[in-house]
Amino acid sequence: MDLMKIKNPCFLKSMSTEELVQLSADIRQFLIEKLSKTGGHIGPNLGVVELTIALHKVFDSPKDKFLWDVGHQSYVHKILTGRACEFDTLRQYKGLCGFPKRSESEHDVWETGHSSTSLSAAMGMAIARDLKGTDEYIIPIIGDGALTGGMALEALNHIGHEKKDIIVVLNDNEMSIAPNVGALHNVLGRLRTAGKYRWVKDELEMLLKKIPAVGGKLAATAERIKDSLKYLLVSGVFFEELGFTYFGPVDGHNFDDLIENLHYAKKTKGPVLLHVITKKGKGYHPAENDKVGTWHGTGPYKIETGDFVKPVNAPPSWSELISETVRKLAREDDRIVAITPAMPVGSKLEGFASEFPDRMYDVGIAEQHATTLAAGLATQGMKPFLAIYSTFLQRAYDQVVHDVCRQNLNVFFGIDRAGLVGADGETHQGVFDIAFLRHLPNIVLMMPKDENEGQHMVYTAIKYDDGPIALRFPRGNGLGVKLDEELKQIPIGTWEVLREGRDIAILTFGTTIPMALEAAEKLAKENISVKVVNARFIKPMDEKMLHEILQTNMPILTIEEAVLQGGFGSAVLEFAHDQGYHHAVIDRMGIPDRFIEHGSVKELLKEIGLTTAHVIERVQTMIPRKQKRA
Amino acid sequence: MDLMKIKNPCFLKSMSTEELVQLSADIRQFLIEKLSKTGGHIGPNLGVVELTIALHKVFDSPKDKFLWDVGHQSYVHKILTGRACEFDTLRQYKGLCGFPKRSESEHDVWETGHSSTSLSAAMGMAIARDLKGTDEYIIPIIGDGALTGGMALEALNHIGHEKKDIIVVLNDNEMSIAPNVGALHNVLGRLRTAGKYRWVKDELEMLLKKIPAVGGKLAATAERIKDSLKYLLVSGVFFEELGFTYFGPVDGHNFDDLIENLHYAKKTKGPVLLHVITKKGKGYHPAENDKVGTWHGTGPYKIETGDFVKPVNAPPSWSELISETVRKLAREDDRIVAITPAMPVGSKLEGFASEFPDRMYDVGIAEQHATTLAAGLATQGMKPFLAIYSTFLQRAYDQVVHDVCRQNLNVFFGIDRAGLVGADGETHQGVFDIAFLRHLPNIVLMMPKDENEGQHMVYTAIKYDDGPIALRFPRGNGLGVKLDEELKQIPIGTWEVLREGRDIAILTFGTTIPMALEAAEKLAKENISVKVVNARFIKPMDEKMLHEILQTNMPILTIEEAVLQGGFGSAVLEFAHDQGYHHAVIDRMGIPDRFIEHGSVKELLKEIGLTTAHVIERVQTMIPRKQKRA
Repeated sequence: MDLMKIKNPCFLKSMSTEELVQLSADIRQFLIEKLSKTGGHIGPNLGVVELTIALHKVFDSPKDKFLWDVGHQSYVHKILTGRACEFDTLRQYKGLCGFPKRSESEHDVWETGHSSTSLSAAMGMAIARDLKGTDEYIIPIIGDGALTGGMALEALNHIGHEKKDIIVVLNDNEMSIAPNVGALHNVLGRLRTAGKYRWVKDELEMLLKKIPAVGGKLAATAERIKDSLKYLLVSGVFFEELGFTYFGPVDGHNFDDLIENLHYAKKTKGPVLLHVITKKGKGYHPAENDKVGTWHGTGPYKIETGDFVKPVNAPPSWSELISETVRKLAREDDRIVAITPAMPVGSKLEGFASEFPDRMYDVGIAEQHATTLAAGLATQGMKPFLAIYSTFLQRAYDQVVHDVCRQNLNVFFGIDRAGLVGADGETHQGVFDIAFLRHLPNIVLMMPKDENEGQHMVYTAIKYDDGPIALRFPRGNGLGVKLDEELKQIPIGTWEVLREGRDIAILTFGTTIPMALEAAEKLAKENISVKVVNARFIKPMDEKMLHEILQTNMPILTIEEAVLQGGFGSAVLEFAHDQGYHHAVIDRMGIPDRFIEHGSVKELLKEIGLTTAHVIERVQTMIPRKQKRA
Repeated sequence: MDLMKIKNPCFLKSMSTEELVQLSADIRQFLIEKLSKTGGHIGPNLGVVELTIALHKVFDSPKDKFLWDVGHQSYVHKILTGRACEFDTLRQYKGLCGFPKRSESEHDVWETGHSSTSLSAAMGMAIARDLKGTDEYIIPIIGDGALTGGMALEALNHIGHEKKDIIVVLNDNEMSIAPNVGALHNVLGRLRTAGKYRWVKDELEMLLKKIPAVGGKLAATAERIKDSLKYLLVSGVFFEELGFTYFGPVDGHNFDDLIENLHYAKKTKGPVLLHVITKKGKGYHPAENDKVGTWHGTGPYKIETGDFVKPVNAPPSWSELISETVRKLAREDDRIVAITPAMPVGSKLEGFASEFPDRMYDVGIAEQHATTLAAGLATQGMKPFLAIYSTFLQRAYDQVVHDVCRQNLNVFFGIDRAGLVGADGETHQGVFDIAFLRHLPNIVLMMPKDENEGQHMVYTAIKYDDGPIALRFPRGNGLGVKLDEELKQIPIGTWEVLREGRDIAILTFGTTIPMALEAAEKLAKENISVKVVNARFIKPMDEKMLHEILQTNMPILTIEEAVLQGGFGSAVLEFAHDQGYHHAVIDRMGIPDRFIEHGSVKELLKEIGLTTAHVIERVQTMIPRKQKRA
């Protein structure tokens, strides 16, 4: 059928199974074609085509509420709710969001991006429903990976206790982003095979009838054997123990099974866990055969071959540079242990894992545990390297404060995807880390100007034994600079003058250095002499250099790809005023006080005013101001 | 015995059960007497006397490592490791810490205060041990309440998966701080009674022998019945499913049972969960009979009667004022739902709970879930009131960012214990909240000068429907001011001039207002005219008033009982420079860049330089500076 004509999912109600199967094929074809051009989360969406159709057939969205956990698997839902025609703009500037978005559709009732939030939100919606006396169904759809996140477990515990009517659909694809970990995964594995033993039930009942009738204790025992049938056969004992009625496992690509079980779930009072087995990448050969997560989310690709369309000769990614440097150092320093919360591929830790399998821990989606695990290692003289995305470190803020910084432990944070991340958009921008880390006692926070400085910073962090140290670096590839053969320590808290100047000093670090240098170059032609400083240590700052600059009375411009409030620029303001430079002219450029949506980093930087042209303009306004006051 | 003479726990090795019983009695007596003078966590410690003694008898601390989760139950451990003589200074300035403290003793290997961290840290220590090839035991002791915290569940999942040798002692006192909640609690309840059915095991084995020998399917069925014995009888199926060997439940006040089971645990490979049932307050009648958590942590009390020694006629606590005002408003506004993460007593929500049982949710120790639950409620037009301590809100930072602020939902945060909290010390100081909330888009953050303004702010927050709003208030009692009968809305982002002045403006809020006013009073006698502003909205600030003040060229002093970096003072600096007031003299007073230990709030404020005298001194240094430059 023509997916572009879909306005809402009502048309599904009258469709036969055969028609649904055809629709699935059409949707798969659509996704494979569209995403080959835009990129996106192809694997997860191909896995939930039948499940999403079945949900929309059995329930009535938007009255009934679907909460897509993590949310990158909501494309089919978007198609069925009238957004097929927007897929050419998927994840692009001002285009369709790659996650559920309330402003896009009344069918998107809960926005996600970070994982494991759906059960808590569903519980809130269920409480609201019951207080208002309405009767909508509330259906969070959560992956097996997201289920290991602590807040999802907190919510399971609460939902099971309160016995609220919530239908949790567990989308078990046996592989979330990376091969799954954790004991819960083993529980699910046992459940997956339990179906085979269903026949046992009838046999057991026969057997029980044969047990000689005896009174007293034996009769009680027989009763308890009957009780044990539940444990033996229904198999969902883990979830049953938590208070859920367990249905499954159900083949997530079979409409009859799915629809039948969704109807069961609909009729069941209290919380239900419907365990659905899906295959990530289903229906597209390269994605279906993916074993490591390459096809979880991709850029554009060639449909026929499954080859990715990549820039030729791009320099290595930042993640690779950092993780491979840690790996190199781990050969000589057996204190080093690497930890990732479910991002071994994204963090490029595969090499480390294969070389040091005993010294690498993928803990699943569990950022809090990952951080305190690192703290525990550090108490024993180890040197944990926690590779974590900036946006996900948000979830471990308390562990960073209370366990790591407060105990002043030698944890090395590799903060990946710091700054704007582009297509993933507002849930994933790594723009808060400076503001939420800078105020913590004991931490060292740094960002390199290029890969070469990056590798030296890794070495510096490994050699640093006075407490926590964090190295933030951006998403994407390095600049392609030459790497020194020999690693060296960069003295903590030292900045570097990249360009001398006498009219104004720009203090910046990381990704915004090139625009500062370029602006300085151009301003030189207007006879404005700009000093550019690589403020590579955000904390502690280079106080000696700051004094020198402030004593010249040069105006100062700080630039950062991070939120302005409480950020690096504020640190410079604080220093200047604390040291009595109350007349200093200090301007700050950075990310304003609002959430930044998706788009290319370049487009977003332009939108928020962080480009070479903006720097030039700002400097031009600052110079006369300074001269006027001088 | 004379507890003061204990240097380390070695003496326990040769003690008989009778001697241990006598030692328990001595320790109880000691605790009851000492804490009657200093106050402290009496209930939890009386509950773990035998358990702690048994642990130190069976294991060898500090080689073997005890991790006390939450940590307020470590007093017996402190006594047995040579610190009895310091109990007169418990929780007092420069005295013995109320939590494990690595600088106090080599027996304190992990510092706690916030709950649910011990399992992750234990896992880190176990990995380190196995990499180093040493053989120490690692024993986290965690309460049933702390076990519901998401990060503890993340860690259980990881430990069970990795099969590390860790002995988890589950200290199940059937009541953590408040009556426990959650499905896990029900699991524990079933386990507690399971002991009664032990006899069934023998009977069942007999029965199995009687089953007629048949081939094929029935034989397989019989095998599976044998497997089911585990489920039926060992009973710890929940933990077994997660990969733990389950022992228990064990009477936590019976030395023979405890020691026998600890030896079993010691001999078992892989992770063990030893389920110990204890009685909080054991051995002291008032604490033992406590049903609501009053005796969890107390101030001084009279031993004979159990009466608390309290100041006469103290004004109501801030918690009570805020929660009771919410309760009053809930009578007319049925959108209001109250949520607490395990602190119904501390947050004084008992009244709300009894009046609105359907609109009050105690979710257990689960701050992340609590926050996103509130967000879910808000999506449905409800008005959730999340009562949460400042220090515990740290654990929900990502949920505040990603779920509440990003979706701009109407969640009302009642941030209790904001600022210094005193005796609980550095793990509990509520000093980071401004720095970790101020940089988030959409949030309103306010703090009242007194209870009357506090109640109006509650009203303001309830009426505010444009997004998240947070009301922070201190620990302890109000000032005793008269309350207006009629509640009114305070316009968002408006400050209030408390005292006019022309030489300097002090901008401050909440607890630091009195010292500013007092300083102004005294400075007036030196002919220094001080303007004092109640900067009750930390975000958004009163920009109109800021412009007016900045235009006068008056120097500005900001005072806050919160960390200086990224705090309110920084917001003022940012505003001044963004608006081009580059010559403004702005000084900031607040909490410096280090963790603040325990002591009375008064002592701590003096130590960090936040007193009336310090304010006067600072103003005196600022005035000539300003005049010099003017």
